[in-house]
Amino acid sequence: IDENRADHIRELVADWHPADIADLIEQLKSKDRSTFLVMMDGELDADVYSDLDENVRDDLVEEMEPAEIAAFITELEVDDAVDVLEDLEEEEQREVLNEIPMEDRAALEEGLGYEEDSAGRLMQRDLIAVPEYWTIGQTIDYLRDTDDLPNEFYEIFVVDPRHFPIGTIPLDRAMRSKRDVFVRDIMDTEQKLIPVDMDQEEVAYLFQQYRLTSAAVINPSGMLIGVITVDDIVDVISEEAEEDLLLLAGVSEDDLFENILSTARTRFPWLLVNLFTATSASVAISMFDATMEAIIALAVLMPIVASMGGNAGTQTLTVAVRALATKELTSANMWRILGKEMFVAALNGSFFAITIGLIAWAWFGNPLIGMVIAIAMVTNILVAGTAGMLVPVTLDKLKIDPAVASSVFVTTTTDIIGFVAFLGLATFVLL
Amino acid sequence: IDENRADHIRELVADWHPADIADLIEQLKSKDRSTFLVMMDGELDADVYSDLDENVRDDLVEEMEPAEIAAFITELEVDDAVDVLEDLEEEEQREVLNEIPMEDRAALEEGLGYEEDSAGRLMQRDLIAVPEYWTIGQTIDYLRDTDDLPNEFYEIFVVDPRHFPIGTIPLDRAMRSKRDVFVRDIMDTEQKLIPVDMDQEEVAYLFQQYRLTSAAVINPSGMLIGVITVDDIVDVISEEAEEDLLLLAGVSEDDLFENILSTARTRFPWLLVNLFTATSASVAISMFDATMEAIIALAVLMPIVASMGGNAGTQTLTVAVRALATKELTSANMWRILGKEMFVAALNGSFFAITIGLIAWAWFGNPLIGMVIAIAMVTNILVAGTAGMLVPVTLDKLKIDPAVASSVFVTTTTDIIGFVAFLGLATFVLL
Repeated sequence: IDENRADHIRELVADWHPADIADLIEQLKSKDRSTFLVMMDGELDADVYSDLDENVRDDLVEEMEPAEIAAFITELEVDDAVDVLEDLEEEEQREVLNEIPMEDRAALEEGLGYEEDSAGRLMQRDLIAVPEYWTIGQTIDYLRDTDDLPNEFYEIFVVDPRHFPIGTIPLDRAMRSKRDVFVRDIMDTEQKLIPVDMDQEEVAYLFQQYRLTSAAVINPSGMLIGVITVDDIVDVISEEAEEDLLLLAGVSEDDLFENILSTARTRFPWLLVNLFTATSASVAISMFDATMEAIIALAVLMPIVASMGGNAGTQTLTVAVRALATKELTSANMWRILGKEMFVAALNGSFFAITIGLIAWAWFGNPLIGMVIAIAMVTNILVAGTAGMLVPVTLDKLKIDPAVASSVFVTTTTDIIGFVAFLGLATFVLL
Repeated sequence: IDENRADHIRELVADWHPADIADLIEQLKSKDRSTFLVMMDGELDADVYSDLDENVRDDLVEEMEPAEIAAFITELEVDDAVDVLEDLEEEEQREVLNEIPMEDRAALEEGLGYEEDSAGRLMQRDLIAVPEYWTIGQTIDYLRDTDDLPNEFYEIFVVDPRHFPIGTIPLDRAMRSKRDVFVRDIMDTEQKLIPVDMDQEEVAYLFQQYRLTSAAVINPSGMLIGVITVDDIVDVISEEAEEDLLLLAGVSEDDLFENILSTARTRFPWLLVNLFTATSASVAISMFDATMEAIIALAVLMPIVASMGGNAGTQTLTVAVRALATKELTSANMWRILGKEMFVAALNGSFFAITIGLIAWAWFGNPLIGMVIAIAMVTNILVAGTAGMLVPVTLDKLKIDPAVASSVFVTTTTDIIGFVAFLGLATFVLL
């Protein structure tokens, strides 16, 4: 459709939702993306940019002049604008900031000052805070008379003279109350306060755990400086879950819209680690080359033991990584759950050991080969269950993200134990 | 601490948040859980139950009498109550429902009538709907005079005489408006309507895509029957992401708090499938037993080729599964992204092929072995990239969840191709 029919496309897209336009842009080839932007000729809603995938957005922004960037950034909410800014090179960032009117610039610079993935980045600075001695009537009049209000809000914050948050009033409660009621008489005094430097994963956990809709953000001295609402959290939750998923598979970040070189680069480290571990498994195998030369059936069967161990280990590992992330697995119940995993491994391990033992016996006509593979199998699945639990728990204790490194350790363990148990036992029994 | 000091514990727990009490119960051993409940002696907030992990809750509920269940269920919100009810056996469900007052029972029965994981299960039935000819003043008076209001709400729905939703007014806007403004003059007319039978994954997608805070649920004839708010969606999003993670690892559901037997059962099918695929890989290897007997180095090296292919395949696969779930990967950009994956595979594949080729040459002093493994490696990584993309996309087209079955297909492919390419080429070149 992209054959320069600019008017037609502009019309077509005119009443689309920004998020849908963003999706359209993501689907286009890189070249077509710029063409599309030129066609739209600045008529694009600024929200389209904040809905774009980060990689795609960076590509587009790279081609824009500082003044253009400044123009659309000013229309974004502060947190979205900061997202765009922080991906720019330092010099360009400065140039863009210079183009932005003073009062907006201060907010952006403050936002850039908070660490990435911290509560400070997630929060909105616009909020409604009223003193406790006001009445609902005063509050409503204040809302009606003030123009510069947040776009949308669900709660009114009540603060003391030092601007410390002391309570909240859900909007619906405020609406239901008579005008002469004092805010202090209907406010909730129990609220979760979020320090501005709290990690976003922690913030998301609080929102999920306590089913929060919005929460006050405070600076180190305790003053109310912002608010985080549940819709900001939705993205954090899916990002964090996605991160675990990708990390477990050895991909450092979502690379669908990245270019070939950076994609190859994000996948490289894991493959390199895997080359080392696979090679060390081969070294383990090579210690038994005489045994394999004597009975070639062993070389044929050995991948089965390693593969079953690897899979059983990955199962336990994934459950453990997820349970650590959701704080369901703690030092309090760790040993109990490890015990459970051992029983599960023993159950499934015995079944598959007997099955593969019978298969091997039938295949190579030697009951001893069947016995050897059965024992190696049950051993390896038990090891897999143990490693699948202990590795992520240990990494977590060492403050290393268990999603990143667990897989390597667990599969290396099951590979090597699988090969050594099988070939070692075979050397002992069959030769 | 659980030495029968009931008073002490009751006191300790008295002002905890229900979610924290639920966590405490999850951490206890099964036996201690019942003891704890007896200690609390019915003083437990009903919300504790809805925050419990499903497996733990089912265990507890199993020990309760229908009347007890009915008593705490009545205090829950309808969607949480339905969650508890649906896990009961049919007969017990009936008994519990009989204990529940008529007016609540109807809502529960209606809730049970919707399919699991549908919008109908997520929605709240309590909402505020006003006719378009009302003024803000009338609306506020209505809110003040009506006792039976939803716990919390963020929007007022505007309906026509047939009770079809025609607009929404965010609460903050209602508060800011003068009393004599008509609701139809300030309502948003663009709203996403959610059919009651829509799958929750689809609902979550709409909320994320359009950054919704709440949305109207309509029945098949178009009438407003409920509302879904973003805090209901938070749980859906983390559940769905978790599901993908677990399914990719071959675990059918979160089994941390399940008992040993059901855990073993949920992990069994995948291990069984893996036994078949690993055995078929062994059959492929056995075709080359003469080659391996002649050059035992091949048996030593062969796991490396399969393992590298498996890992490269898993990387592509995971990115693809996630991108399908978030609708970033579509038929429109599929071929382009497949092309990109091939380039990435060629880049990384060549690097690792050369590296492992040199290692093998140095190790066994035979340049031909190095060449054979290098060619097999690059072939297998290219196959891995292709399979990692095409398998999930094809499953998705066939309406099969790509997270469930992709892994098997991809790793079987890379195992078999890895072994056959390496050993086959070796037979050809080295013998």
